[in-house]
Amino acid sequence: MSDDATAFVPGHVTGFFSAHPADDPAVAGSRGAGLTLSHGVTVTVEPAQETTVSLDGEAVEMPPVADVLRALGVTAAVDAESDLPLGAGFGVSGAMALGTALAANAVFGCGRSENELVTLAHVAEVRAGTGLGDVVAQARGGMPVRVEPGAPDYGRMDGIPARPEIEYVAFGGLSTADVLSGDTTALTAAGETALEALRAEPTLDRFVAESRRFARDADLLTDRVEAAIEDVRAAGGDGSMAMLGETVFAVGSGLSDAGYDPERCRVHPAGSTLRSE
Amino acid sequence: MSDDATAFVPGHVTGFFSAHPADDPAVAGSRGAGLTLSHGVTVTVEPAQETTVSLDGEAVEMPPVADVLRALGVTAAVDAESDLPLGAGFGVSGAMALGTALAANAVFGCGRSENELVTLAHVAEVRAGTGLGDVVAQARGGMPVRVEPGAPDYGRMDGIPARPEIEYVAFGGLSTADVLSGDTTALTAAGETALEALRAEPTLDRFVAESRRFARDADLLTDRVEAAIEDVRAAGGDGSMAMLGETVFAVGSGLSDAGYDPERCRVHPAGSTLRSE
Repeated sequence: MSDDATAFVPGHVTGFFSAHPADDPAVAGSRGAGLTLSHGVTVTVEPAQETTVSLDGEAVEMPPVADVLRALGVTAAVDAESDLPLGAGFGVSGAMALGTALAANAVFGCGRSENELVTLAHVAEVRAGTGLGDVVAQARGGMPVRVEPGAPDYGRMDGIPARPEIEYVAFGGLSTADVLSGDTTALTAAGETALEALRAEPTLDRFVAESRRFARDADLLTDRVEAAIEDVRAAGGDGSMAMLGETVFAVGSGLSDAGYDPERCRVHPAGSTLRSE
Repeated sequence: MSDDATAFVPGHVTGFFSAHPADDPAVAGSRGAGLTLSHGVTVTVEPAQETTVSLDGEAVEMPPVADVLRALGVTAAVDAESDLPLGAGFGVSGAMALGTALAANAVFGCGRSENELVTLAHVAEVRAGTGLGDVVAQARGGMPVRVEPGAPDYGRMDGIPARPEIEYVAFGGLSTADVLSGDTTALTAAGETALEALRAEPTLDRFVAESRRFARDADLLTDRVEAAIEDVRAAGGDGSMAMLGETVFAVGSGLSDAGYDPERCRVHPAGSTLRSE
């Protein structure tokens, strides 16, 4: 048992998805595609008498993190530092759950495999209603395509072989739990159509185009988001909306070229990982 | 279509394995576990009238690379630079095939997904008889466990959540094709036993211990390799043999501590990836 351990988990922006609920949270999940980002969450876990969770120095309630620690049978102080805003479609809660699983396994010598740890974090996210597909995407890295939903024993992943620079602007939050608990029929139909088109042509350009079509067809665009995407396209770039947040992402310098002041990062080459010993 | 594209593929050392031949090379493969290394192969692909392949500036015959280009319907100049010796158990031929697939897809705009590219490279390696499991491991990164054999549509992977420093000494080569074309019954039985033990306890220590047991039980140790592993253990470290090469790897500073002059690297956090545009 070491004193503490640290894991890095990339952010994840979903471009489009379909929801696939199931009684077993390891079977539940989403199909769809997204981008993992070099901006992400660094999670440090240290043994403690009582579990506490902080994000950027502030105490936070984060049910999936507590759930992961309970499943491992440990109590710990979990300290997360994030480049990304919470609740804006970057998978921060999934990253905290997954980073906690990886770091706690190392610090307490729990002896779980990577798939087992991803499953713990995925199940915790599904139970909390805060995400369906971020965790498996963040475990993989790159531009993940969720071909079949669920934790590693059930799901299947592919990827788009591209590693572009990405810009983003976060205007505000949308509640993933609210959208996922509503009627997802139209959303899921639009997501399935987009996935079929992307699998026929698994390229960056097709991903962004299908993401835009999905955001419109699933009726998730806010006025600010719609205007920013139009600005990016008018300036010769392309982008879409992060699912689920009031956030716009663009390829390359798309948002800068349109006169915005975005954050800049890249598609992350790796999945979640322990910081080297 | 760009002028050229470059991919990096980590080296891969198998600690133990079982061979699972099949008529369909996408179904064929190996089960087992290994380490991907931060030392690897950088592959640059440029369109050319006729296919040529070089490794560290020397023209080489590399049937899996030519096979991948044929499958993509292109001809190209492929230039590889490697930190690792060829034929010594580091998966250099698999890395060249996989790096060629990723870079050629980018440079010629072939529009294949990552799984499709991994499948092309895996099939080319199996056909050439130069490897059964390196390509899928190199696509994944970390410490890959091949739970089920074959290309992504058929296989299943897990991983050991550890990222240690690794040292290695390569004394010379062994022919993968010779071992794989001989009687693999004892080898496969030892590999299956090792995999079962590792899956019950998916840790770095268990991986190294099962690798040592496999090398002995499968009767693959040479005198030099056996002596070096004994030296590492006598100095308080642990290590085993790279399958298949006359190569010893050790965790941390195991070989230095035993008085050897090893190469040093780390377990690589990421799988194969295009160099960012």
